[in-house]
Amino acid sequence: MYDCIILGTGVAGISAALTLKALKRNFLLVGSRELSAKVASAEKIKNYPGLPSLSGREFKAALSKQLEEENIEVTEGRATGIYDADGGFFVACGQDMYEGKTIILSTGVETVKPIEGEKELVGRGVSYCATCDGFLYKGKTIAVVCAAKEEEHEVELLAKYASKVYLFALYKNCSVKGKNIQKIVGIPKRIKGEGKVSAVEYQGGEIAVDGVFMLKDAACDSLYPALKVEGGSVEVGRDMATNVAGIFAAGDCTGRPYQYAKAAGEGNIAAHSVNAYLNKK
Amino acid sequence: MYDCIILGTGVAGISAALTLKALKRNFLLVGSRELSAKVASAEKIKNYPGLPSLSGREFKAALSKQLEEENIEVTEGRATGIYDADGGFFVACGQDMYEGKTIILSTGVETVKPIEGEKELVGRGVSYCATCDGFLYKGKTIAVVCAAKEEEHEVELLAKYASKVYLFALYKNCSVKGKNIQKIVGIPKRIKGEGKVSAVEYQGGEIAVDGVFMLKDAACDSLYPALKVEGGSVEVGRDMATNVAGIFAAGDCTGRPYQYAKAAGEGNIAAHSVNAYLNKK
Repeated sequence: MYDCIILGTGVAGISAALTLKALKRNFLLVGSRELSAKVASAEKIKNYPGLPSLSGREFKAALSKQLEEENIEVTEGRATGIYDADGGFFVACGQDMYEGKTIILSTGVETVKPIEGEKELVGRGVSYCATCDGFLYKGKTIAVVCAAKEEEHEVELLAKYASKVYLFALYKNCSVKGKNIQKIVGIPKRIKGEGKVSAVEYQGGEIAVDGVFMLKDAACDSLYPALKVEGGSVEVGRDMATNVAGIFAAGDCTGRPYQYAKAAGEGNIAAHSVNAYLNKK
Repeated sequence: MYDCIILGTGVAGISAALTLKALKRNFLLVGSRELSAKVASAEKIKNYPGLPSLSGREFKAALSKQLEEENIEVTEGRATGIYDADGGFFVACGQDMYEGKTIILSTGVETVKPIEGEKELVGRGVSYCATCDGFLYKGKTIAVVCAAKEEEHEVELLAKYASKVYLFALYKNCSVKGKNIQKIVGIPKRIKGEGKVSAVEYQGGEIAVDGVFMLKDAACDSLYPALKVEGGSVEVGRDMATNVAGIFAAGDCTGRPYQYAKAAGEGNIAAHSVNAYLNKK
């Protein structure tokens, strides 16, 4: 059982990981080896102390280098649920299950609301992580709901596995290309299926599919329903503790301002609070 | 009148300045062109996201470069008092007085408690800033209470003005040298004087002086007595607002953990809160 499971590899999650490492805690950092699409896509960052005017790409490179220097590995995955365990929590990430005494939520802001059938069919055809679950759809037909341009590389990855990809791009200027990718004009309304995904319904029609990938940031309260969320943000105290003992949060998921410096600071505080919480136990 | 006066040039103050600049606010950053002695003296920083394993000196250099790139100037000074003004506050820094609609306190933690007579004689012989007030003691006799090795350069600066310097070093391995500097073994107990400093009393004796320099971080509640302070830390909400409307705080002065990432995050949040406060007004 890990001392802590950090969910999310944006600046907050990385900050928490660096500090837990300094505090000699054993932890799991779950997210993407690409770290955060949002960070990498920032054009120019000018107000992050210590890094004069740099691009998101450069910032991402610096963070990657730092994780490498500190021997911190990223476990590819996107959490789909958090459940109580004896002395801690289980975290489900698609097919995988991890166990931690504490959790730090640093999953960013949810940009797209869940659609009908999505939550019910998670793990039964609905997935949030191309890198984790893509291989399960080798030669199959899938739909991909892509919330942001930064996720396009995941669509392309999925097109390497699936024989056919129906793409719902929820943003302008989608530039994904691929012989087996068909763009659908319309908003997905419902994921259908009895115990397993069978189709996606949208304005204008219905498509039979074996799976649906939702490429978007997760909502924290859908991960753990008892978590107190106000106006879309996880409620925390100054110590980054949530209303659930053992669950902490940091970064954009705790609310505005959506800023890298804030995320770095909150990740740091959350790690110290996890440490204090474990020391007390 | 400035939109905001930022007191302190540690990571929190610099973070606030960078963000107020991005928000196009006019502000004054008061502290030291040397930024923070504490930052510069850090041996190795490993958990500040984006800056893999660097020394405090390198961090300081990066922060200086960034201030320069953003055309942010540091006004040399150390606040000695904050007073209510029409639509804002007056900030006294030794002989100088500034006016701001809001204040961000980022003055660090007080490492040395005030001694008897100190507060009563501020501006009447007691000073906290060698760079600001040193010239007033040309050819005179002064006592200097130096709290940390990093302040030694200020002692040396004072010795260029004063004809005689009595030095109380409150740390080990003091290496200040100068023909006109005399180290006193003992802890200063009281600053004496009727309306003006006349002497310093210490275990073992008393010395007649024209002025006393206290080279140490200031306590926030001594700057503005109505400020709510708990256990030495300024009480703030998640938006970094204090109990006084228009006064915000960030960094070590708001409490543990004393970490650069936390300071950066809080400075950022404080700047956004100042902006929101001014927009509302």
